[in-house]
Amino acid sequence: MPEYKAPIREMQFVLHEVLDSESHFQAIGATDASRDMIDAIMGEAAKFCEEVLAPLNQVGDKEGCTWNDGVVTTPTGFKEAYQQWVENGWPSLAQPTEFGGQGLPESIGNVVSEMVSTANWSWGMYPGLSHGAMNTIELHGTDEQKEVYLSKLVSGEWTGTMCLTEPHCGSDLGTLKSKAEENDDGSYAITGTKIFISAGEHDMAENIVHIVLARLPGAPEGTKGISLFVVPKILPDGTRNAVECGSIEHKMGIHGNATCVMNFDSAKGFLIGPPNQGLKCMFTFMNFARLGTAMQGVASSELSFQGALAYAKDRLAMRSLSGPKAPEKVADPIIVHPDVRRMLLTQKAFAEGGRAMLMHAGFLVDIVKYSADDEQKKEADELLSFLTPIAKAFLTEVGTEAANHGVQVFGGHGYIQEWGMEQIVRDNRISQLYEGTTGIQALDLLGRKVLMSQGEMLKKFTKIVHKFCKANEDNATLKPLVEQLAKLNKEWGDVTMQLGMKAMQNREEVGGAAVDYLMYSGYITLGYYWARMAEQAQKALDAGTDEADFYNAKIKTANFYFQRILPRTESHKLAMLNGVDSLMDLEEEHFAF
Amino acid sequence: MPEYKAPIREMQFVLHEVLDSESHFQAIGATDASRDMIDAIMGEAAKFCEEVLAPLNQVGDKEGCTWNDGVVTTPTGFKEAYQQWVENGWPSLAQPTEFGGQGLPESIGNVVSEMVSTANWSWGMYPGLSHGAMNTIELHGTDEQKEVYLSKLVSGEWTGTMCLTEPHCGSDLGTLKSKAEENDDGSYAITGTKIFISAGEHDMAENIVHIVLARLPGAPEGTKGISLFVVPKILPDGTRNAVECGSIEHKMGIHGNATCVMNFDSAKGFLIGPPNQGLKCMFTFMNFARLGTAMQGVASSELSFQGALAYAKDRLAMRSLSGPKAPEKVADPIIVHPDVRRMLLTQKAFAEGGRAMLMHAGFLVDIVKYSADDEQKKEADELLSFLTPIAKAFLTEVGTEAANHGVQVFGGHGYIQEWGMEQIVRDNRISQLYEGTTGIQALDLLGRKVLMSQGEMLKKFTKIVHKFCKANEDNATLKPLVEQLAKLNKEWGDVTMQLGMKAMQNREEVGGAAVDYLMYSGYITLGYYWARMAEQAQKALDAGTDEADFYNAKIKTANFYFQRILPRTESHKLAMLNGVDSLMDLEEEHFAF
Repeated sequence: MPEYKAPIREMQFVLHEVLDSESHFQAIGATDASRDMIDAIMGEAAKFCEEVLAPLNQVGDKEGCTWNDGVVTTPTGFKEAYQQWVENGWPSLAQPTEFGGQGLPESIGNVVSEMVSTANWSWGMYPGLSHGAMNTIELHGTDEQKEVYLSKLVSGEWTGTMCLTEPHCGSDLGTLKSKAEENDDGSYAITGTKIFISAGEHDMAENIVHIVLARLPGAPEGTKGISLFVVPKILPDGTRNAVECGSIEHKMGIHGNATCVMNFDSAKGFLIGPPNQGLKCMFTFMNFARLGTAMQGVASSELSFQGALAYAKDRLAMRSLSGPKAPEKVADPIIVHPDVRRMLLTQKAFAEGGRAMLMHAGFLVDIVKYSADDEQKKEADELLSFLTPIAKAFLTEVGTEAANHGVQVFGGHGYIQEWGMEQIVRDNRISQLYEGTTGIQALDLLGRKVLMSQGEMLKKFTKIVHKFCKANEDNATLKPLVEQLAKLNKEWGDVTMQLGMKAMQNREEVGGAAVDYLMYSGYITLGYYWARMAEQAQKALDAGTDEADFYNAKIKTANFYFQRILPRTESHKLAMLNGVDSLMDLEEEHFAF
Repeated sequence: MPEYKAPIREMQFVLHEVLDSESHFQAIGATDASRDMIDAIMGEAAKFCEEVLAPLNQVGDKEGCTWNDGVVTTPTGFKEAYQQWVENGWPSLAQPTEFGGQGLPESIGNVVSEMVSTANWSWGMYPGLSHGAMNTIELHGTDEQKEVYLSKLVSGEWTGTMCLTEPHCGSDLGTLKSKAEENDDGSYAITGTKIFISAGEHDMAENIVHIVLARLPGAPEGTKGISLFVVPKILPDGTRNAVECGSIEHKMGIHGNATCVMNFDSAKGFLIGPPNQGLKCMFTFMNFARLGTAMQGVASSELSFQGALAYAKDRLAMRSLSGPKAPEKVADPIIVHPDVRRMLLTQKAFAEGGRAMLMHAGFLVDIVKYSADDEQKKEADELLSFLTPIAKAFLTEVGTEAANHGVQVFGGHGYIQEWGMEQIVRDNRISQLYEGTTGIQALDLLGRKVLMSQGEMLKKFTKIVHKFCKANEDNATLKPLVEQLAKLNKEWGDVTMQLGMKAMQNREEVGGAAVDYLMYSGYITLGYYWARMAEQAQKALDAGTDEADFYNAKIKTANFYFQRILPRTESHKLAMLNGVDSLMDLEEEHFAF
């Protein structure tokens, strides 16, 4: 397995320099979150992730979880690491003080979360899944529900889950069948089977709090008849609830995380929020959950990059086409070869660009949560809504690409489990599927967000990009980047307009273009963050610095991204503008003979 | 696991109609290979592959091979299936009659091989690896060596391997270290460790014939000091040779095939071909081996397509954007959704286009092997040399893409091992690595083949494409395809010229452009085969047919490929023409801080 080293300097660069954390935290009133404090947290988190979690990553893959008569045992060391995690107070870092949290902004939690995710994604899902449960209860629970559940979840003594998917439905929740019938005491009897419940059962915490989607008797059909319930494994009175883990899945990856079939057999549950408003309630924090999944793409890119870089410096094969670079050795280290560099730089560009995108999204979450300015709040929320499907789908798609580059840099050795490179491919593959597949995110972006707002949500973002380009058009270093970005930024609007016109003739055009549109938008968006990083690096160089190599590396990587990766927009554009007809022409029964 | 159904009608279409098998086999004097006979062979092979091999595919993945003190046990059923395979005479199908073969052309063997490969790639590697050994001995062995080894390999009683890779070197064979020292009896004592030896040890055959690369004492350094040896596990006198399987690898996929570390400890070997000419001897059939690997890309695309198509017709989710298509059901089958169709059609386009490319390559192999016309032979050989790296790298790259689409169509279920879709991704991933990585193939194409021939090898192919386009420019159905293809075909030459000029300034440009160039070339090449299939389909429709649906599906899939996939050339072109500078600018020590 690649030895994970938390990229603290990289994180500081984005957080403090590109995004100006000090101003941000001041503006939202998080005066505790000083640069020094954040750096101290990062240092501690890095230590825990590098020393405790990273060594368990391969163990988790190899051992997996085991199921025995409803009891799930996590891989060796997972439980002990979780204990340490709780004892060190990490779960409560970015939770409200009224429930025992440390009250730091969400975005600081994200910084720690990136480290956890990269060091050991499967482990990180156990505490990670609690967020959905905490958010639900905090936003929609009664005072009593908050009192009973929140402090235990905040401390990490208990963990949480989200129970949405059923065997016949995942994305299409309107058809879900789980039932909730009122008991005499005002609680509900929940009955049904839920699948793909991450961290649904495990041995790491004394209680597990399930948030369950189910239908009340006589509820309207479809998505408007779904209610939310909290169903704890152990009831407040200490008795065991009638919820059982029926089995765990054997998966391509994330073996260390238990993906559970959960059987609710008249389990006692408590309604959260108004009846039949369950999906609406959930949507209020869906963006946060999706950003959490987007993180997996960044984590995979980073981890695979770290592994591939070390190997590329060490492994000797062939001579450079322009003459030996290490004549004293039997062959040159493969990092001299342009194609190996192409793969490494692609990984690096995705990891660092993706980090910038997600850290910015984290700041937007902060504003939505903590800002006192309603107008600013609304704006941040809209921008976040627009960026979320891009971050989720684009970053996970390129995360799989990056992980595959890592395997490729290792040659045949990349295919061998021992090296840990192929595990990253397997682990990351789920990120394109859960929390809404790439196709679902793409429909959300093009259909719900962009076209349904008449392009308004896109315009808000392209305006930001436009302003950035304008401000830097005379900057010699940035000029080539900014010109290319400005051109694409304009084209983005034009392409969207054309798609909107087509969609008015034929609604299928939206579905036919969606994924190409999402990837197209993703490459431009990432280009914007790379241009911002280049701008910041140039500023630092102009101001004088003893870290010139660091800043120059940023500019060089930005140049690489613009020259070798960003041209991918062109193919996506051509494909989507060619329309949906060739997708719909073939009759269902003529796909095969 | 998808239930494999051999696509016999598809194969017949390419073989008999597009490539006109009858004329081809007549021309090379293979008068036995009538259409009826080929169809009969296909029918029998399909039965064996569907009924015997396919059911073992998932078993192989789950059980894997086990190693115990040098003895390797293959998964349940593998050995019995191999026995049947041998009893039915399949190994000898396309082998020379003088060694007990049935004397059918190589290309017929390939048709069977596609079915085996798709039904169960891991199993197919055991007989598949024998080809390299047979080719080596047939082309370079002494009469005695042929007598001892060939008939047993042809019958399938023994299997063979190719032992090239060592722990420190794969692609860069010049640095290999295994030693061969002459014994008193004229044989050699071979000492060294070989890794990644597919089918290096197993329980399916009574003997295993290793072809080993090693150095004679005092041999020149580098690739010009490597010799070839045949090293049987059991020596002709019945004694056990000093070659042992030290361990087997734990891999991402192809678990059913044993990937062995082979330790040669003064093992007795016999020189094949002239001393120090081993690599040259191997290159004479390297193209065949690489085409064998290319097949994995087609097999994965086909198998994943079959699985995804069945699921997409069955699984219900959401309603079509243009109104319910199955109003009687709770939701529409997902095949109504354009994005699901995009993924299915992409798989279909890669599988069927790739099949046409490989079957054509198979015919070229036939000509090289059997034609009496030296000029024709030379031409076929050159064309084959040009197509081989494209087929190997491009088809395996898109094979992984296709397999990933298959997972994606299944949504979260695609990640679960039980469905067998993720296995295809894991199994196929090796195809981009072994027999020369994509990067190595790309250097072979752009560097060795195209630029070193001053573009001559490319010109020969673009001339064929040009002629095809000319001949069809007035064909109403083909017009849009032919126009696009002709334009790209011309551009291909221009782009190559530009790269050639750049490379004269800086040799690194070759490495910097190579993979983009390969993918660019691959998409155009596949476009040519799709255009040929559309041409043939239109001819059949014009002539009148009761299979109009079948032929129309070909034209519709061609249209899809040209409209939605072929535009990918544009991005590859832009990226490679942007040059190598942004790849080389970043100093090795500044990739990370």
